Amino acid sequence: MSAPLKLYAAAAPNGFKITTFLELLGLKYDLQILDISKGEQKEPWFLKLNPNGRIPTLIDSTHGVTVSQSGAVLQYLADTYDPNHKLSFKYGSKEYYKQLEYLIFSVAEQGPITGQLYHFKHLAPCKDEYAIDRYFKDVNRIVGVFDEILNRNKHNGLYLVGDHLSAVDASVYGWSRFLKPNDIELEKYPLFNQWYNSVDQNEFVQKGVNRLLQK
Amino acid sequence: MSAPLKLYAAAAPNGFKITTFLELLGLKYDLQILDISKGEQKEPWFLKLNPNGRIPTLIDSTHGVTVSQSGAVLQYLADTYDPNHKLSFKYGSKEYYKQLEYLIFSVAEQGPITGQLYHFKHLAPCKDEYAIDRYFKDVNRIVGVFDEILNRNKHNGLYLVGDHLSAVDASVYGWSRFLKPNDIELEKYPLFNQWYNSVDQNEFVQKGVNRLLQK
Repeated sequence: MSAPLKLYAAAAPNGFKITTFLELLGLKYDLQILDISKGEQKEPWFLKLNPNGRIPTLIDSTHGVTVSQSGAVLQYLADTYDPNHKLSFKYGSKEYYKQLEYLIFSVAEQGPITGQLYHFKHLAPCKDEYAIDRYFKDVNRIVGVFDEILNRNKHNGLYLVGDHLSAVDASVYGWSRFLKPNDIELEKYPLFNQWYNSVDQNEFVQKGVNRLLQK
Repeated sequence: MSAPLKLYAAAAPNGFKITTFLELLGLKYDLQILDISKGEQKEPWFLKLNPNGRIPTLIDSTHGVTVSQSGAVLQYLADTYDPNHKLSFKYGSKEYYKQLEYLIFSVAEQGPITGQLYHFKHLAPCKDEYAIDRYFKDVNRIVGVFDEILNRNKHNGLYLVGDHLSAVDASVYGWSRFLKPNDIELEKYPLFNQWYNSVDQNEFVQKGVNRLLQK
């Protein structure tokens, strides 16, 4: 029998965000892995679901909702499937908006800028030193901001907001897996480095990652 | 007497988003314009408010909330100051998540990618044809996606979601002001062009823009 949740994703930063959060929430879901290298995410059937033609997209047949963009998918899951706020914060609370602020920082800066660095370091046809330097510096700045955010919240533990993991940790984790391949030295950011290792070693996070890696 | 809402912003895309939405909501607010050219947003007093050191930041002394990142500020204002959903959608509804999806598309793709195009066309010290071409194509793709989103919603009118303006229109408008200076031909995207002109001519939107331009 198919699950009421169906996720379209790929073994990429924005895919890992969602599978890890689904596993943390303990939800069952069907997974369809798109072949991005063949442009499957730009095919007409998928564009009907998401006009932006990018993963992830989640269909929740219980509520008749289709939602795309990793930040929106995470917030939808938190709002809908975490009524006791074990992995989220009460709607309207100060922590809810702090979580939303950092979630948006993650999708609006960490993701796009790390993505540009990855492109210019690994995919661009020519070596563009100006662009590599521009994005390398900005990714370091962004990781430094997360280190400071963790510092401000350290009385609560190794979490970005409050005293437990939430959608924002899943979001930041997704792209953080791609820092070492971009030669970012995590040791320069001690709290962030501790936080990353702690999230990375979480058994549910590993389960989410492995589902996309088909391990 | 000072207003309970204080906005720190600048005459820049992410500033325009917030002042236009505040005016659409009919809210009174104090405005402090930061001199970004002098790096005022990186000064210690501002970093205490926003560790990311970027505008906009909103302080709501009524609710004891400080919130940054344009997408989060817009969602906070909609949730808090639009109880009758004239410029928003009911929390948990399908339209609420559609609005959140496109809001995040705006802050995660439209903003960062148009920003990179602007940098390489106008600010970079050398002419980098590869980067200019990369971002020019992607901004055109993104505007095309908004044109398609408007097409899917055209039975409701010229709005990105539902039958009225909302935070997502304010968000997309902020960066859309910077399309023509980047040589994007809006005429290629008929519905988007109509939508842009309609929003741009709205008297409250103009009031918000002019407040930041100190006109």
